[in-house]
Amino acid sequence: MNEQILIKTLPSGKLSADNYERVASPMPEIQAGEVLVKTNAFAITAGTRAGLQGSASYAGAPTTGIVMGGTGVGTVVATNSDAVQVGDQVLTSTGWQQYSVQKPANLELIPAGHDPLHYLGPMGVNGLTAYFGLLSVGEARAEQTVMVSAAAGSVGHLVGQMAKIQGCTVVGVAGSDQKNDTLVSKLGFDAAVNYKNGDYRAALKEATPDGVDVYFDNTGGFILGSALFRMNVGGRIACCGVVSQYDTGSPEPGPKGIPGLLVNKRITMRGFLVFDFADQYNEARSEIHSWLQSGALISLTDQVSGLAAAPAAFVDLLAGGNIGTRVVML
Amino acid sequence: MNEQILIKTLPSGKLSADNYERVASPMPEIQAGEVLVKTNAFAITAGTRAGLQGSASYAGAPTTGIVMGGTGVGTVVATNSDAVQVGDQVLTSTGWQQYSVQKPANLELIPAGHDPLHYLGPMGVNGLTAYFGLLSVGEARAEQTVMVSAAAGSVGHLVGQMAKIQGCTVVGVAGSDQKNDTLVSKLGFDAAVNYKNGDYRAALKEATPDGVDVYFDNTGGFILGSALFRMNVGGRIACCGVVSQYDTGSPEPGPKGIPGLLVNKRITMRGFLVFDFADQYNEARSEIHSWLQSGALISLTDQVSGLAAAPAAFVDLLAGGNIGTRVVML
Repeated sequence: MNEQILIKTLPSGKLSADNYERVASPMPEIQAGEVLVKTNAFAITAGTRAGLQGSASYAGAPTTGIVMGGTGVGTVVATNSDAVQVGDQVLTSTGWQQYSVQKPANLELIPAGHDPLHYLGPMGVNGLTAYFGLLSVGEARAEQTVMVSAAAGSVGHLVGQMAKIQGCTVVGVAGSDQKNDTLVSKLGFDAAVNYKNGDYRAALKEATPDGVDVYFDNTGGFILGSALFRMNVGGRIACCGVVSQYDTGSPEPGPKGIPGLLVNKRITMRGFLVFDFADQYNEARSEIHSWLQSGALISLTDQVSGLAAAPAAFVDLLAGGNIGTRVVML
Repeated sequence: MNEQILIKTLPSGKLSADNYERVASPMPEIQAGEVLVKTNAFAITAGTRAGLQGSASYAGAPTTGIVMGGTGVGTVVATNSDAVQVGDQVLTSTGWQQYSVQKPANLELIPAGHDPLHYLGPMGVNGLTAYFGLLSVGEARAEQTVMVSAAAGSVGHLVGQMAKIQGCTVVGVAGSDQKNDTLVSKLGFDAAVNYKNGDYRAALKEATPDGVDVYFDNTGGFILGSALFRMNVGGRIACCGVVSQYDTGSPEPGPKGIPGLLVNKRITMRGFLVFDFADQYNEARSEIHSWLQSGALISLTDQVSGLAAAPAAFVDLLAGGNIGTRVVML
């Protein structure tokens, strides 16, 4: 049998584990040209919450009764294609299930000797998102100050480290002192500020004495608003995600100061999706891999065991429960 | 005597003519290196309202008891500088007064044969703002759809015409059917939509069947919000001004969809001030002048007579009373 987690109902407000159901389906059979992949692990990321929100998302209209989507790594266990061999390690849209049928065009082969879990983190969508958002969209350069929200998240913790590698001063914003301790002591952030503290704005100001040149926005909402007040003239805001607005039926209005502060400070805000940079993935991965090998970049994962734990792990992630990339190990 | 309009009090909500007072001051005397300019006309523009709003403005902290600021054209009537001659026509920060003392470095000489009033419109700050916002910030190109708000205003009516010159489809948004008729019938806009009508959103949708590639935002607020929903993937929003938010003590929050829609549609929003393009003014003016001479670009002015009329004309402008550049003739 193929154990799967289906979307049972769409959340009307906050997501609940009850929005999912676990089922045992017949083992899928592959047709000509297809490949059967056994999932070894998949990542849970806040962005997939947008796919349950309807037309406001790039993920398209949400549907129930289907396997919950997600990117995973797995092993090819059967193949009707010459393009891959049984035993190959691959990165693909496994979804939340034990086995998936794939077309070779949708598989990325993980080179021998590479850690497959890195492909759910720095070598995968999260890492590439951090890389292009920081360097191409945000245009972060040495000596500048970079601020990142959801800084302990799957993308944020990589953004901050990549900015340090560029020679930037890095300030993270996250929702717990424990996360912030990790960012500073383990990942080398220059400072980290807890947005849940009453003195958040004052603390952010203190942590950014030279203002902010690049804000990597994973949250939107009032943290975006706080960044606007710290931005320097000519600053860039890389709009990556809106985690503060995903898990709700009624998204907030945008922050005050848009567009007024954008004009006064000649700020550029640019939304991006990593897929727009697909033609540059290889070069980026090569550079990221070298950072991993040298130890300049650390991949934090936050592991959960077993498919059954995935729904609650997603709910907890949306409440900020993870440090690093949350990975479900099968 | 030198008749002047002073800022008497700062508005706490909407601006009123009572925030100003008219005084007769002694005629100023020029020192070594200085020039006396007699004001012939000055422009009233919504952006100067921001200067009365305090720290949220690029114009700096507001002050009372000073002459109201403004850009005007005048004639040199006395000079202690070799750089200008009596009789020269100049563009400068005259303020709302009959005579001003200037340093030559703050004067732009208006070439003989040029219409000085054009320097309060297409050849001045308004025209340069339209030019760089549309072409450099918005990156408008032939065949694209350009939307502009405050489309009958001093900047907007030029933006739309310049976009037509580039070969774009142009949709204006303004607050009266009379303005919209002028935009379409006199200035060649493809369509113009009245945001005060109940079916505004539907009308905007109908007027932009191919979506919007470039939105030139003079207003912020809900018109910005409506544009976000019509933007195409990869679209650009040139943030020029926030006229919907100037004349109030309590600016609105930003529209819903920021930053969510920016991400989904990979939109770039960029605030700008025309002064950042000062090194390119000469080329731009040369091109704008050729458009004026060929008749491709029409400068609409909305003239008011006499200094005493300026405060009420400003209040009326903030309520949308003008078509084209509002100019006070002395």
